[in-house]
Amino acid sequence: MSNTFGRLLTITTFGESHGPAVGVILDGCPPGLELDAALIQRDLDRRRPGQSAVTTQRSEADKVEVLSGVFEGVTTGAPIAMVVRSEDARPQDYAALKDVFRPGHADYTYWKKYGVRDYRGSGRSSGRETVGRVAAGAVARRMLEREGCRVQAFTAQVGDVIARERQVEIAEQNPVRCPDAKAAAEMERVILEAREAGDSLGGVVEVWATGVPVGLGDPVMDKLDASLAWGLMSIGAVKGFEVGEGFAAARMRGSAMNDAMVAGGGFASNRAGGILGGISTGEPIVVRIAVKPPSSIAVAQKTVDTAGQERDLEVRGRHDPCLCPRVVPVAEAMVCLTLADALMRQRAIEPWKPK
Amino acid sequence: MSNTFGRLLTITTFGESHGPAVGVILDGCPPGLELDAALIQRDLDRRRPGQSAVTTQRSEADKVEVLSGVFEGVTTGAPIAMVVRSEDARPQDYAALKDVFRPGHADYTYWKKYGVRDYRGSGRSSGRETVGRVAAGAVARRMLEREGCRVQAFTAQVGDVIARERQVEIAEQNPVRCPDAKAAAEMERVILEAREAGDSLGGVVEVWATGVPVGLGDPVMDKLDASLAWGLMSIGAVKGFEVGEGFAAARMRGSAMNDAMVAGGGFASNRAGGILGGISTGEPIVVRIAVKPPSSIAVAQKTVDTAGQERDLEVRGRHDPCLCPRVVPVAEAMVCLTLADALMRQRAIEPWKPK
Amino acid sequence: MSNTFGRLLTITTFGESHGPAVGVILDGCPPGLELDAALIQRDLDRRRPGQSAVTTQRSEADKVEVLSGVFEGVTTGAPIAMVVRSEDARPQDYAALKDVFRPGHADYTYWKKYGVRDYRGSGRSSGRETVGRVAAGAVARRMLEREGCRVQAFTAQVGDVIARERQVEIAEQNPVRCPDAKAAAEMERVILEAREAGDSLGGVVEVWATGVPVGLGDPVMDKLDASLAWGLMSIGAVKGFEVGEGFAAARMRGSAMNDAMVAGGGFASNRAGGILGGISTGEPIVVRIAVKPPSSIAVAQKTVDTAGQERDLEVRGRHDPCLCPRVVPVAEAMVCLTLADALMRQRAIEPWKPK
Amino acid sequence: MSNTFGRLLTITTFGESHGPAVGVILDGCPPGLELDAALIQRDLDRRRPGQSAVTTQRSEADKVEVLSGVFEGVTTGAPIAMVVRSEDARPQDYAALKDVFRPGHADYTYWKKYGVRDYRGSGRSSGRETVGRVAAGAVARRMLEREGCRVQAFTAQVGDVIARERQVEIAEQNPVRCPDAKAAAEMERVILEAREAGDSLGGVVEVWATGVPVGLGDPVMDKLDASLAWGLMSIGAVKGFEVGEGFAAARMRGSAMNDAMVAGGGFASNRAGGILGGISTGEPIVVRIAVKPPSSIAVAQKTVDTAGQERDLEVRGRHDPCLCPRVVPVAEAMVCLTLADALMRQRAIEPWKPK
Repeated sequence: MSNTFGRLLTITTFGESHGPAVGVILDGCPPGLELDAALIQRDLDRRRPGQSAVTTQRSEADKVEVLSGVFEGVTTGAPIAMVVRSEDARPQDYAALKDVFRPGHADYTYWKKYGVRDYRGSGRSSGRETVGRVAAGAVARRMLEREGCRVQAFTAQVGDVIARERQVEIAEQNPVRCPDAKAAAEMERVILEAREAGDSLGGVVEVWATGVPVGLGDPVMDKLDASLAWGLMSIGAVKGFEVGEGFAAARMRGSAMNDAMVAGGGFASNRAGGILGGISTGEPIVVRIAVKPPSSIAVAQKTVDTAGQERDLEVRGRHDPCLCPRVVPVAEAMVCLTLADALMRQRAIEPWKPK
Repeated sequence: MSNTFGRLLTITTFGESHGPAVGVILDGCPPGLELDAALIQRDLDRRRPGQSAVTTQRSEADKVEVLSGVFEGVTTGAPIAMVVRSEDARPQDYAALKDVFRPGHADYTYWKKYGVRDYRGSGRSSGRETVGRVAAGAVARRMLEREGCRVQAFTAQVGDVIARERQVEIAEQNPVRCPDAKAAAEMERVILEAREAGDSLGGVVEVWATGVPVGLGDPVMDKLDASLAWGLMSIGAVKGFEVGEGFAAARMRGSAMNDAMVAGGGFASNRAGGILGGISTGEPIVVRIAVKPPSSIAVAQKTVDTAGQERDLEVRGRHDPCLCPRVVPVAEAMVCLTLADALMRQRAIEPWKPK
Repeated sequence: MSNTFGRLLTITTFGESHGPAVGVILDGCPPGLELDAALIQRDLDRRRPGQSAVTTQRSEADKVEVLSGVFEGVTTGAPIAMVVRSEDARPQDYAALKDVFRPGHADYTYWKKYGVRDYRGSGRSSGRETVGRVAAGAVARRMLEREGCRVQAFTAQVGDVIARERQVEIAEQNPVRCPDAKAAAEMERVILEAREAGDSLGGVVEVWATGVPVGLGDPVMDKLDASLAWGLMSIGAVKGFEVGEGFAAARMRGSAMNDAMVAGGGFASNRAGGILGGISTGEPIVVRIAVKPPSSIAVAQKTVDTAGQERDLEVRGRHDPCLCPRVVPVAEAMVCLTLADALMRQRAIEPWKPK
Repeated sequence: MSNTFGRLLTITTFGESHGPAVGVILDGCPPGLELDAALIQRDLDRRRPGQSAVTTQRSEADKVEVLSGVFEGVTTGAPIAMVVRSEDARPQDYAALKDVFRPGHADYTYWKKYGVRDYRGSGRSSGRETVGRVAAGAVARRMLEREGCRVQAFTAQVGDVIARERQVEIAEQNPVRCPDAKAAAEMERVILEAREAGDSLGGVVEVWATGVPVGLGDPVMDKLDASLAWGLMSIGAVKGFEVGEGFAAARMRGSAMNDAMVAGGGFASNRAGGILGGISTGEPIVVRIAVKPPSSIAVAQKTVDTAGQERDLEVRGRHDPCLCPRVVPVAEAMVCLTLADALMRQRAIEPWKPK
């Protein structure tokens, strides 16, 4: 089950960086959703490499093929298998890395855990695995749209550059996917600067979900924020998660943190980030994830090889100088999947619920 | 499954704040662990209310009874059910709150989700639910000890007071459970100050796991950090999670973030926090959680009642002014359970693994 | 998870034959069900030992205590923990069996699997474990009743005596729970005869579920009949399962097996047993289980002890001469739980389903 | 999760009868297994249609492609995705059946459950779905072989013809896969006779697992026989399951049913079928499943269409006259997967188990 996420609506992803294909089975999807490959392709295109100078130059069309679960343009309730063939795989590029552990990568831990290592790129630990998440997330997004729920992620920080504005409608118009035009330009500048230095940069991605009905999430272990944390932390390179005030809440008093309620329902503020007691409040859900700087850098690093010998390493190749722009659609996918799953579970108890 | 955590080693907790009992079933526990109630009681005593001026004055002995799964002092492989009876429950204290939603609490969301609300204290969303987690965590801790693995949590921050030192051996010697004696005194002061003002304070709890073998965690969805995030975010009042550099990684370059590897194995630094690619590295696992200030405060707040009418509210009663000291054993429990579960899953594949 | 059954509506049972208590956590139960302990007790009383000469003479009141999940007589959506204390436990009766493996029992396999054995009665493998199933099943039954669905089991065969009639309304009026008055008397006679010979008898229990809506069951792995088989085969002493024509279908031609459909919906016959392709058809669900003769017999048997030495054994004590009458409420419970779970999962997809 | 089977070692299958492809993700497979496509193909070839006159004449090469999880001929611990493209799909053959419900098929129940129906062949409910099971089962078989465990299924009964002998080594040498040469010839005759009459025949498939270590299976809900029942009943057309004496046990006395134990370990007989208390005994595991006669018959049948109108129907096309020969490899696959999963779970507890 280690490659499966979700309870009622589940994804199981497969595939390695430079293997023949990556993909996903989305199981538990309700019947009756209008679905065409173009809709899924739209999200995949946002994730795909080679979109701009701030991302890797690996070139993949990432064309999705739907193998099952859709008939005459409509989901049938059967599992939806989706596959993307690799086109620009260059496993030979990695022959030199066969015996060496790249710092910051999972080379060493995979080797110790499994006793065998797929050294072609990052193998299973590659970001390429997220293709399946994004494809499945596009279907979950469709489920949520029927409820009037909308999920959008964007880059909120790159290095020391912090977005001050939340003009989410402009986020997709710049290569860093930042909702603050001025910060976006500055982010682009520092990313290119790092790249020229053979280095990379970290950042923060923020996700908003609006129109989420009150009542999603299943305490106590499947609290909505716990499920979101699980899903988002399962994305490679993510080192932190917070909801609402997050770590800032550590510095606050209860009188400043509590959101007052207002007559007629709803809240005067949303410091909780749309979740109380693990259940959605009806306010926008706001979560943030910390994305570490990519580990593949051209700067020389100290490391060791499989024989335990010291080695100096400069990782050459086609790498992302900052992951945030490409994490954006992946984070959206995981949030869509988590919410759609919680929504289905809520529907399951409603017929008995007191009115 | 919403009250179950874990894969092979699972806990299912039950019980409400002012119901007759709280407890847990720990399933999947291996046979052959020496286990007596005293061992479990030791951790429960650390969690129990009324330990000092910085915690709630509710008085509960929290005496655990083991109902199954242990025979002649040894676990048998059967599920271990543990129950703690409530003694100082005062449901009548809450009659006045029957129709009102306390800000920052889950009153409103539970009511909307389920159409019915157990208004005695926080019902199911109470911190009292964590009794079962701590009891089960004590058993998981025993499993880990056999591997030489040790888990300890402590308070790293309260409000603006930040612990600079990590003298973990002194953490249990002060009421805030802080590993920095000077900061501890200051933390205690600010908590009591907030309490006198009828207010409360947030903070940060940090957990260290040392002696963890390389290779725990099951990518990609059950990455070790994703599982830790799920488990820790499922604790009430937790608003953020980070591993290693966490959110600080957002500001870093790859050359500063990557941990160099050293001859003979191991790492020159531990900015990853002991996990790479979702698998333990053998370095100490270091995670932190943001704990919000308790929502129950005596300061007057604006809210509404079940009829949607505005109400002014001052929450009186026996409440924690800062949750960190009591979250410490709960966080340890969730980390112990997550690691023991990952350890069992690793054992399951080892007979086939190439040597 | 090995003590958990179900997907959305789950039970986790605990407890050993002669331990302090047995019980269950029912998780995922919808809020809003009116529930009092009396309702649960009614089913427990049907399962309880000492009801007649055809069952064991162990005397247990089996009084259930509800520890959580119910508030003011209504389920809240929180997990429902139910506990039954043992009163007539006599662990000392089993001291003589400490080192010997009783034939037909799980003594040997538990010992080999776990390296430790709770030799008090059958420990975890005792039929007493089913107390928790029956308590939880009573709640599931209530969920189904709201849909007009009714589940009833009865004894269809004991040894060579086969019930020819299905007067289900009289089944509870005779000690063997047989819906054929004439066969019932004969069954009682052969059971007592076997008992006097120090021996025991097998039989068949049949379960009918009527009023089941069309559409329950989730192919392909969670086919409704596969789930029923899983649940019913998990009851101790059950050696076979069949639905509809079952093993008789092996001798049939397709033209004889297929149920014709009739104008306006529905079927002209029900050889399928109410399930096609793993989904309920709307016809009554009819399943049968084979129950082996109890292994505890006074007749002398050859066996070995933990040292591998041959031993002659006569099992004395208070044992059931035939399990069928007591399996009846347990089988009902498992069928109720399976159907209620499938019903919830069906509700979860309905908002999207094409009309 | 409804298309997933297993706990630690899981399969998730996808695909419809006349869709572009069918396949599976096998997750949780240990690293280090030598695996080539030829090994998987061998089992697929045994399942594939068109092998003889007693099976359907649909012609599919069923060539498997391994998309992930294997590197340099060895499993890596990553999920193994396997896909088989459809070649002889003829969806147009089914246009005439678009609005009619074939008796004995799942047409009606799928339509009612999902509100939409993939009428190309049996869509998701087709036996073609089992391709993925067989491919994954071949990998599980390899895991078991390392332990000296061998799984073989065969046809034990067709209509009224019952195999008296168990010469399992000859089973694969006749088209019905029967281990009794004389019965095999008779089975072939009655199948062809039924086919010429435009009709079909049911039967019984028996599975033997030898060399299974003592101790597999996780009571009480994941009893080994309960898991086997779940897995085998999830195969389409299976109407019954039994282990050891099965339904014959209903007629037996305890003194006849109990297997005596013999000095030095082991049992004098194996009426239990290799499982006691849900745990393997070390004796061969023997289970049987009842396979109904195929529902697609040329004989005229009464049915209705989606408008509720009566229709007469003769199902023409390329159908199996008896499913047993093709169920054999599928049953083996489900038993291999169940045993390999139980084996991994047993390995997970062993480091703590008392010696």
